[in-house]
Amino acid sequence: MSRTTRLARVSVPPIAQAGRWAALYDGRHGPLADCSQAVPNRPPPPELAERLARAALEPAIARYGDILGDPALRAAYAAHVSARYGAPVDPARVAITSGCNQAFFAAMLALAGPGDAVILPAPWYFNHQMTLDMLGVDARALPLDAASGFLPDPAALDALIDERTRAVVLVSPNNPTGAVYPDALLADILALCARRGVVLVLDETYRDFLAEEARPHSLFGRREAEDHLVALYSFSKTYAIPGHRVGALIGGAALVAELEKAIDCIQICAPRPAQAALPWAIEALGDFRRASAAEIGRRGEAIRDAFAPLSGWRIRQIGAYFAYVEHPFGDEPSAAVAARLAEAFGVVVLPGSFFGPGQERFLRIAFANVEEPAIREIARRLALASPALDASA
Amino acid sequence: MSRTTRLARVSVPPIAQAGRWAALYDGRHGPLADCSQAVPNRPPPPELAERLARAALEPAIARYGDILGDPALRAAYAAHVSARYGAPVDPARVAITSGCNQAFFAAMLALAGPGDAVILPAPWYFNHQMTLDMLGVDARALPLDAASGFLPDPAALDALIDERTRAVVLVSPNNPTGAVYPDALLADILALCARRGVVLVLDETYRDFLAEEARPHSLFGRREAEDHLVALYSFSKTYAIPGHRVGALIGGAALVAELEKAIDCIQICAPRPAQAALPWAIEALGDFRRASAAEIGRRGEAIRDAFAPLSGWRIRQIGAYFAYVEHPFGDEPSAAVAARLAEAFGVVVLPGSFFGPGQERFLRIAFANVEEPAIREIARRLALASPALDASA
Ligand SMILES: Cc1ncc(COP(=O)(O)O)c(C=O)c1O
Ligand SMILES: Cc1ncc(COP(=O)(O)O)c(C=O)c1O
Repeated sequence: MSRTTRLARVSVPPIAQAGRWAALYDGRHGPLADCSQAVPNRPPPPELAERLARAALEPAIARYGDILGDPALRAAYAAHVSARYGAPVDPARVAITSGCNQAFFAAMLALAGPGDAVILPAPWYFNHQMTLDMLGVDARALPLDAASGFLPDPAALDALIDERTRAVVLVSPNNPTGAVYPDALLADILALCARRGVVLVLDETYRDFLAEEARPHSLFGRREAEDHLVALYSFSKTYAIPGHRVGALIGGAALVAELEKAIDCIQICAPRPAQAALPWAIEALGDFRRASAAEIGRRGEAIRDAFAPLSGWRIRQIGAYFAYVEHPFGDEPSAAVAARLAEAFGVVVLPGSFFGPGQERFLRIAFANVEEPAIREIARRLALASPALDASA
Repeated sequence: MSRTTRLARVSVPPIAQAGRWAALYDGRHGPLADCSQAVPNRPPPPELAERLARAALEPAIARYGDILGDPALRAAYAAHVSARYGAPVDPARVAITSGCNQAFFAAMLALAGPGDAVILPAPWYFNHQMTLDMLGVDARALPLDAASGFLPDPAALDALIDERTRAVVLVSPNNPTGAVYPDALLADILALCARRGVVLVLDETYRDFLAEEARPHSLFGRREAEDHLVALYSFSKTYAIPGHRVGALIGGAALVAELEKAIDCIQICAPRPAQAALPWAIEALGDFRRASAAEIGRRGEAIRDAFAPLSGWRIRQIGAYFAYVEHPFGDEPSAAVAARLAEAFGVVVLPGSFFGPGQERFLRIAFANVEEPAIREIARRLALASPALDASA
C-alpha cells in the first residue's frame, strides 16, 4: 500500500479535530459549551424510546429487511411529505438509508462518476465535499457572498455548469450558514437544472426546524421534479435519534431503482428497529417536532440578542440550527481562532475553513445544541476572548 | 439523466429475483422451502434481544457514536479474535461497520479506484462483484474448478496479478460453495500477496459455523498481516441479528485511519444499540455460537444423506452454511432451473449464474436456513423435478 490512494488525499473528518481542541480546555471559565457538531442535546421522547425498545424484541425485526426500506416507513414518509409540501409523492420514490450522509453518498454513486463534476456552493457541508473527493468526482465550488446572505446566484450557477456537470447540491436550511433558501430561488434553480440537464440534490436535514405550518418549498409539485430533483432528509435531528441511523431520499422512479443496487452493496438494508418505530413517530410526534422547532427558534433569538452588543463579532447569517459569524481576529486563520476559543475559553465552534475555500473570517456556531443560559455564557466568553482593540472601539 | 451511468450497468440484486420466483409457487407440494438468502432462521437469544431493547432506552446510545465504532465493541471484538486465533490484535486495528457488505465496500474505497483491478475467484459473492463494478474497479475473475473443491490455485493467482492489481478477495468458509480454505493455502496466498504488493481481503462472515475449538487460520500471527491482510466479519449470522446491521473489519493501522474518512461519509457511525449489546454477546454467548454451529453441522450431514440417493444431482462442495450442487438438467441455464424449482416445486435456491461466469451447471443451497425435515422434503421434491432420463438411469 505504498501507492497514494484517492482516499488518502481526502481530508480528515473535522468533527474529531474540534473534539481534540475541546479536550485541552481546563475548565477555568466554567463548563464546556459545545457548539461544534450539530446534535440534538435532548433524548428522544420516551414513547419513541419505548417503541424502539419494543421493536428490538421482535424476531421479525431482527431479520434483513427490504433494501429500499420497510414498506411501512416508505409509505409513512411519502404521506408526510405529500401533506407537508402539498404535492403527492409516491412511496415507490422513497429510499430509506442509514442517515442523510448515506443518502447523499448513494445519490452520488448513482448520479456521477470519475471525470464528472458536481457543483457545491461554498461554504459547503464538508461530508459532501469529502464524498465527492473519494468517489473521484470533481467538487466544483460556487463561491457565495456574505453580502447576499450566502444565497447562490442562478446566473453564476448557470455559468458554472458545463458538459461534465451532473448535479448541483443545495442545503436548505443551510449547514453551515443557517440560510433558508426562498422558494422562488429554489424553483428557479430547479428549472435551470432541468434546462441544463443536471439534477438538483437538495439536502433538507434541518427542515423540521422551520415552522411546520409553512411549506418549505414547492418543488415536489413541479413537473421537473421527477427527473431533476433528489431530496434528502434525516430522521437524526428531528427525532433526536442520530445513533439509530435512519435517513431518506426522494428521487425519480428510475433513480430509486438504481439506488437499490448501491444500497444493497453499501449495507443490504438500513437498521430495522428504528424503521419499525418511525411510522408511528412521524404520525404521533407532530407536537414534539413543533416544540423543538419553537425552542430552537428561541435559541436563535437568544444568540442574536447575545451577539448584538459584542463588538467586532457579526452574525452574517442565521437560521434553523446554525449561526455563521464573522470573528474579530482579522487575518488569523479560522482554525487558529477556533482552537483558541476551545482550548482557552471552553467555547467549541467550527472554523470556516472546515467548510471550503474563502471562509477564514467565519466561524459556525451550532446554537441549537445549547440552552439559552449557555448561549449568554458563550457571548460573555467571546467578549473576554476578543482583541483589546475591540474593547476600546 | 439520459446518460448511462456506471451504476446503471451494474446487475440487479439477485436475492429479490429469487423472491419473485418464489411468489409464483402455488403451494401444491407443501410449504415453500426457502434456501435462497443466507439468513439465520431463528431469532436472536432472548437475553440478547433484551439487551438490545435496554440499549434503545438509553439516551447516550441515541446519540452519534465514534466513526470507527464504540470503543467497548472494538476492544471486545479485538480480544475475541486474539483469543480465537491465538494472535494479538490491537483494538485500534478494528473498524465497526453496518454489516460485512459495508466492511467490503469501505475496504474497496480505501484500496482501489477506477483503473485498478481486484481479483475475485469465481464463483464469487455477488455483492463483491457489484461493489467493484459500481466503483469502477475491474473485477478480475480467477476461475475455480469443481474438481479441486473450488479452492484457488496459488500459481494461477500469481499469474493473474499485474501492476494494476490492488487486492485479492477470498471468502472462507465460502459463499456460494461452502469450501473451507485450509490454513496452509491461506498462508501461501498471504505470502504471495505480500510478495506481489497487494492486499488479501478475507471475508469470514461464516467462520462461527466452524467448530469453535479449531482456529480458522494462522494469518493474524504472521508478519505480513499488518500491511497485507484485511479480515472482514459479520455479526449478522452468528447472533441472528442481521436487521441490526453490525459488522467489523481488521486491517493495518494505516488502512483503518483511511477508513475513518470513508465510514464518516457513508454513514457517520454504525447503529449504536447493537454496538452496545454486542460486547456482552461476544463474551456470554459462546454456548449459543457453538450450539448453532453444531446444529448447522447436523443440517450439512442431513443434506449429504438426502442427496446420496438422488440420481443426477451431485454435491460438488459443502461446508458451514452452503452446499454447491450440480443439477441434472444438462445445458439448461441455471436461472431457468432455479425458476422452475421455485415456481413449480416450492424449492428456492440460487442459480450458479448469480455467482459469476462458468456456473450454469450449479445451484447454491443455503441449507443452514432450514430444519432437517425440510431438507429431506427438498430432496423429495428435487427427485420429482428430475428429468425422466435420470429416473431410468
Ligand atoms: C447538511 C447535513 N446533511 C446530512 C447530515 C447527516 O445526517 P445523518 O445523521 O442523517 O447522517 C448532516 C448532519 O450533521 C448535515 O448537517
Ligand atoms: C460472504 C458474505 N459476505 C458478507 C455478507 C453480508 O453480511 P452482513 O449482513 O454483515 O452485511 C454476506 C451475507 O450474506 C455474505 O454471504
